[in-house]
Amino acid sequence: MTLPAIGISLGDPGGVGPEIVLKALSERASLPEARYIVFGGRSIVEEAAEALGLRPGFITWENGELPSGPGPFFRDVGGSPVEFVKGKASAGNGEASFLFFKAAVEMARVSLLKAVVTSPISKTSWRLAGLSWRGHTEYLESLFPGAIMTFWSGRLKVALLSHHIPLAEALGRVRKDVLLDFFRALHRSLAGVRSGVEELLVAGLNPHGGEDGLLGGEETTEIRPAIEAAAKEGIPVSGPFPPDTVFLKALDHPEKMVVAMSHDQGLIAFKLVAFETGVNATLGMPFIRTSPDHGTAYDIAGKGAADPRSLIAAIRMAVELS
Amino acid sequence: MTLPAIGISLGDPGGVGPEIVLKALSERASLPEARYIVFGGRSIVEEAAEALGLRPGFITWENGELPSGPGPFFRDVGGSPVEFVKGKASAGNGEASFLFFKAAVEMARVSLLKAVVTSPISKTSWRLAGLSWRGHTEYLESLFPGAIMTFWSGRLKVALLSHHIPLAEALGRVRKDVLLDFFRALHRSLAGVRSGVEELLVAGLNPHGGEDGLLGGEETTEIRPAIEAAAKEGIPVSGPFPPDTVFLKALDHPEKMVVAMSHDQGLIAFKLVAFETGVNATLGMPFIRTSPDHGTAYDIAGKGAADPRSLIAAIRMAVELS
Repeated sequence: MTLPAIGISLGDPGGVGPEIVLKALSERASLPEARYIVFGGRSIVEEAAEALGLRPGFITWENGELPSGPGPFFRDVGGSPVEFVKGKASAGNGEASFLFFKAAVEMARVSLLKAVVTSPISKTSWRLAGLSWRGHTEYLESLFPGAIMTFWSGRLKVALLSHHIPLAEALGRVRKDVLLDFFRALHRSLAGVRSGVEELLVAGLNPHGGEDGLLGGEETTEIRPAIEAAAKEGIPVSGPFPPDTVFLKALDHPEKMVVAMSHDQGLIAFKLVAFETGVNATLGMPFIRTSPDHGTAYDIAGKGAADPRSLIAAIRMAVELS
Repeated sequence: MTLPAIGISLGDPGGVGPEIVLKALSERASLPEARYIVFGGRSIVEEAAEALGLRPGFITWENGELPSGPGPFFRDVGGSPVEFVKGKASAGNGEASFLFFKAAVEMARVSLLKAVVTSPISKTSWRLAGLSWRGHTEYLESLFPGAIMTFWSGRLKVALLSHHIPLAEALGRVRKDVLLDFFRALHRSLAGVRSGVEELLVAGLNPHGGEDGLLGGEETTEIRPAIEAAAKEGIPVSGPFPPDTVFLKALDHPEKMVVAMSHDQGLIAFKLVAFETGVNATLGMPFIRTSPDHGTAYDIAGKGAADPRSLIAAIRMAVELS
């Protein structure tokens, strides 16, 4: 059996990405068996490896079919040395990190990769580089409008009905048809991977879950009908539960995932429970994308102090979900 | 110096209220020195005391001036035996628990009490009794429209800009004038009591705090101007911070309190950190009201198993804030 091919993009060259990628791949014992392919710039990797005293032993992969050996492999994106600045946002950092990410996504789109793990980019660098996407997720959504943002930790799992839109707009998405489509897509995505999720707990929108309409009607007119319709199709979904207790129901129940009605309804809970230790996984696409739940950490970049554990968790999850 | 007078309402007679009140007052060593006055029905207290094997040693307070001794005192509300059902909601339970609460509030309004601690009532019992208020807070708001709901635990403190209204309506309250009035009232309330709060951290409304208007405008047009105006008046307030990280900023910083823009923005965080161990305190009134952060617990009522710690915390806080 061929090992699954997992792409890893290097992230913003000025941030901790190169360092945590090298550290993670140097601790191969803590990673599942897979063919790992790093998408980055050669000079960046060499500089980081020297600073850390690590020898990653990358096998260059130029073109054509991916070798069947265990790797790790390295794909030099762009070819020429990348202009970058350590420790802060820059147009060069933005352009480079976008190209690394895009190259990995393109390989995944044509099924050469099972999953893509993305190291942190800087939204400011992307903006300075003139890119129109705010970040990884927006780029993926532009290619795959059905992309679903989910967050995973040992203690809590959360899926977001909507994410980077104003809260007033997010309320407008709490509609029976939108919800039913979302439950179907999420269920299909989870069923297609080794997620361990057996039950979706749906949050309400209003205080106490609307209290039979007294404190808001969406639970009665939209959420509950969508849940009932999905349940009839065999989707294991229940609720709506009061937003302030639904996360407690799922906490430390690895078989349960909360469906949150908005970005912060889900992430207030998730970040309190798993700040910077969780994994962000994008589902609903032909491949899986995961990323660590932290940023470029410019303040510690290049100092050898970056902790690779969240990236390692993201890599492990990418393999598990593949 | 006379000891502060603190009223304690017995709550729903069918729930754990009578039991936790008796247990708390039997552990006087764990309570600060104060004159405690229990508002309830004699037959309920006697029955609960007998079942628990406790002798509360209540001194009956009938009328007139409150005695200056340490108590504990008992105020028999209604006079005649109360009809009640153990372990479930009923009209009698609702009527009784409302009368106990109302009697305590009336004493507090005329400054005979510094604070009122409310044991859990059942909203269903209140409805069965034909009462138009959903619970304690709504009754207090009908008397004191400026009442402010706050939640306190050792790890996190939260104030709610709005509470029992639909989320769509709550968004409509995120207006500069409303916010400025709220900051003023909250600051005045906290300054008037020994709260330990030195800084208010204001949550944004939209993902990432709106990201300079990209993900929502309220931060720019309403919240930030209100914060700036309040700061000019000397109110120690900062933000707006992204909703999904503001609670982490305040966590384990007892001098900080988060101002949440809606019921669940605040309570998702609070309940994850301090489920059923926190204290709910109503400020912005001529007296303080506190209550434990749990319900009637009908399933364990009358079995001697109820844990009085949350009520004890509520009593301690009532005395501290007085």
